[in-house]
Amino acid sequence: MALVGLEELRAAQQRIAGVAVRTPLLPSPWANDGSRRLWLKPEGLQPTGAFKIRGAYNRLAAMTATERARGVVAQSSGNHAQAVAYAAQLLGVKAVIVMPDTSPAVKVENTRAFGSEVILVGPGERDTLPAELAEQHGYVWVPPYDDPFIIAGQGTVGLEIGEDAPDELDTVLVPVSGAGLISGTAAALKLTCPGVRVIGVEPELAADAQESLRTGRRAQWPVADTYRTIADGLRTPSVGLLPFEHLQAYVDDIVTVTEDEIRATVALLARRGRLVAEPSGAVAPAAYFHRAGELDGRVFAAVVSGGNIEPRLLAELLGV
Amino acid sequence: MALVGLEELRAAQQRIAGVAVRTPLLPSPWANDGSRRLWLKPEGLQPTGAFKIRGAYNRLAAMTATERARGVVAQSSGNHAQAVAYAAQLLGVKAVIVMPDTSPAVKVENTRAFGSEVILVGPGERDTLPAELAEQHGYVWVPPYDDPFIIAGQGTVGLEIGEDAPDELDTVLVPVSGAGLISGTAAALKLTCPGVRVIGVEPELAADAQESLRTGRRAQWPVADTYRTIADGLRTPSVGLLPFEHLQAYVDDIVTVTEDEIRATVALLARRGRLVAEPSGAVAPAAYFHRAGELDGRVFAAVVSGGNIEPRLLAELLGV
Repeated sequence: MALVGLEELRAAQQRIAGVAVRTPLLPSPWANDGSRRLWLKPEGLQPTGAFKIRGAYNRLAAMTATERARGVVAQSSGNHAQAVAYAAQLLGVKAVIVMPDTSPAVKVENTRAFGSEVILVGPGERDTLPAELAEQHGYVWVPPYDDPFIIAGQGTVGLEIGEDAPDELDTVLVPVSGAGLISGTAAALKLTCPGVRVIGVEPELAADAQESLRTGRRAQWPVADTYRTIADGLRTPSVGLLPFEHLQAYVDDIVTVTEDEIRATVALLARRGRLVAEPSGAVAPAAYFHRAGELDGRVFAAVVSGGNIEPRLLAELLGV
Repeated sequence: MALVGLEELRAAQQRIAGVAVRTPLLPSPWANDGSRRLWLKPEGLQPTGAFKIRGAYNRLAAMTATERARGVVAQSSGNHAQAVAYAAQLLGVKAVIVMPDTSPAVKVENTRAFGSEVILVGPGERDTLPAELAEQHGYVWVPPYDDPFIIAGQGTVGLEIGEDAPDELDTVLVPVSGAGLISGTAAALKLTCPGVRVIGVEPELAADAQESLRTGRRAQWPVADTYRTIADGLRTPSVGLLPFEHLQAYVDDIVTVTEDEIRATVALLARRGRLVAEPSGAVAPAAYFHRAGELDGRVFAAVVSGGNIEPRLLAELLGV
């Protein structure tokens, strides 16, 4: 499979302009520790609360008129669901979103509020129903990460960091789950700022990508393990096939953070950074604060990938 | 006194580039109510947590080398203190900040962390000490709002809204205290997008600017009254002299919101908008949500002026 290149990344950037927010890179003087500095890329500011709108909109906007007329189907319990629903609404495309019947009510409501049809399913149907619907109704399947348009869309995060970063930037920290975001972001950075190191960050409880990158074989972790992390956006048991090729080509290393470190960083980002981050969104800055010994850099950018956190959890973490 | 014009506004925009964050204008689909839409200008993303860095940096960067060598003095219990301290640190200027001895410890610490000397004073000395220090030591006084450089700096918020807003934008909501922010913002909007209405928003408990605009006479409210509002950045008992002239020239109306509406909007911005806003930062969107009957518009932008809220208060409001 071909890696995503600059042409696809720049085409994505043009397609999503005016739909995805061009998020700023935020200096964070409160995070300076004398020798190291941190910039934050706040993707919770996106209209659906996470970076996923970049890839979803890029995929749908690149569809032909015939494909758009057929409608789309996607499967997600979270941020990809809302992103596909929002993109479909903007483009006037019918969307059917398959969600686990255990999804938080608020995420189901948000997805419906964007005009999508939501089908709630038990665990057994989750992986098979989207393909069945695609076949029966002709819907176009919009995968969450294993797709060059999705990767190129998420990669606009990397293009923007490259455009906005100070010259001294040496390390970019990116969360990893299915690995669409880090694949595109790493490709964009290595192709535009080749000296910058790109480091993935995972919860210890879902470190399949670290194992995959280090062993050179795509690892699959038991869902029973990965579902223990509070970072509900990072529980995917293995990285995608196309993302794995990007990891091997472009990602320098992957480090892990603990559950306590993720929780503490959600609170710190709200208290000092004035950002609402979901646990998955806090793992990259958590590595800056808690894994200094494993990271060589001095000037960091960290992607805060989303802000869809239950208010009750945010209140609980702030109260600590 | 001369009103701030486009030339001063554009010069300010150039001076603050790369220091103040060029905040995006955020679409907020969750706030659509069928007939009305809302965009948010999130100034809590600034490195000091509020728009004040725009004016403070513009004032200091415009100083002559001789003035810079003298150092600066400012008086503030909150966001202006941190802004002057941060600007002074970046420019290598000595800064002395006079703060009330009742200031929250965290704000005193943040101001000191930017390298400023902080002098804590009782209420009796608060207004006189800065002038004495300026005279004794030759420090340049950096006022919080009654100054054309401060007004022009804050007005870059309006230039940016004008650059980023959709064509259909008809109404901009801006919080009012000393009125530096709304003065500059209204001037920028009226000079670049003359069809847009600019509406100030105040807490009911500190509605001196509304009275001033409506009567044509600069009102002074008792501090014992204005200090009852939870919006601690908006307790100034009267607008500045130069800001009052801008209000009369450029501001279409001022509306008020209640304490309950401010509290509810802080929670709503965190829950749905994924923004940490301080109470003063929530008053402008509060008018969108609670004063629809007094506002004619359909497409709104609201300035969320800052995010320096006590974590305990945010947790309390989220828990409601």
